[in-house]
Amino acid sequence: MNFAIRLATKADFKDIWRLLKDLASHLKMLDQMTQTYEEVQRHGFSQNPCFESFVAVVPDEHKSKEGFTIVGCALYFDIYDVWKGQAVCLDQFYVMPEFRGFGIGKALLSNVAKVAKEKGCSLLQLNVLDWNTPSLDFFAARGAQDITVKEGWHVINFDGQSLERLANETRQN
Amino acid sequence: MNFAIRLATKADFKDIWRLLKDLASHLKMLDQMTQTYEEVQRHGFSQNPCFESFVAVVPDEHKSKEGFTIVGCALYFDIYDVWKGQAVCLDQFYVMPEFRGFGIGKALLSNVAKVAKEKGCSLLQLNVLDWNTPSLDFFAARGAQDITVKEGWHVINFDGQSLERLANETRQN
Repeated sequence: MNFAIRLATKADFKDIWRLLKDLASHLKMLDQMTQTYEEVQRHGFSQNPCFESFVAVVPDEHKSKEGFTIVGCALYFDIYDVWKGQAVCLDQFYVMPEFRGFGIGKALLSNVAKVAKEKGCSLLQLNVLDWNTPSLDFFAARGAQDITVKEGWHVINFDGQSLERLANETRQN
Repeated sequence: MNFAIRLATKADFKDIWRLLKDLASHLKMLDQMTQTYEEVQRHGFSQNPCFESFVAVVPDEHKSKEGFTIVGCALYFDIYDVWKGQAVCLDQFYVMPEFRGFGIGKALLSNVAKVAKEKGCSLLQLNVLDWNTPSLDFFAARGAQDITVKEGWHVINFDGQSLERLANETRQN
């Protein structure tokens, strides 16, 4: 199937939001998506955006049964690693199920990797759920290392009340 | 023991580097620290720094046996989470062994949490090695959630050759 990968603009956000909701729903974590449409749009498409995104676009004749031509997206931002230097985090990565198997995911991922190399990064990092075997296999087949399995890294979150409590413990220096 | 927590300046970098090397050595991962002193210094203390840091300073009369007064540090930077919004990542966090048990780690962590709240973040995230029970316990005691255990999140890295290969797969659109 013919498709194009391009950087997203604000005009694409309606489609990106639809894909992000689909992804969260697929991961059974829609309840964790606490930000609103307006918030994510502002974070992504203001003067100092918190993330950038690629979208995958199919020609009109291949549009989805609901009429969509934007069928995949990859959202990423800069991070840092004291040991390895500047890096890119791939935060969201999704292709609509009916458009899988055509190399769209691979093309989205390659474009993010190319951006990372162009920025001088030596690391592209992402998080994947352990039951999401198709995704784990997809990344492993392309040479990714699961450093949770290999080295034992766990992801630790402070949020809500635990973050509030920590912040309030600050001593008055 | 009396101590102060303050934002680091370039003049502190020599001490920060010593602490980062100590931490990597403690984690038995000194070989993964591929960046040079000059690179990390430039990334942290240039016009658009990749990270900020707090240092913990003890008075001269409590200096370490080698004569150091900067005895701990916490390095952090902004990240993003489409589900939860703007967030802070705590990348490096260390207190010299002989200065543990005085609340210095807690004070460093609280200061980073306070910065996160002031930035309007609802999430402070970090990675910890699964064998590092003292650290895991330290964070758990303060209400952190291990989302690798709780939800199954794994950390996936593309670096070196795998990143290079991915980037070169980009189609010419």
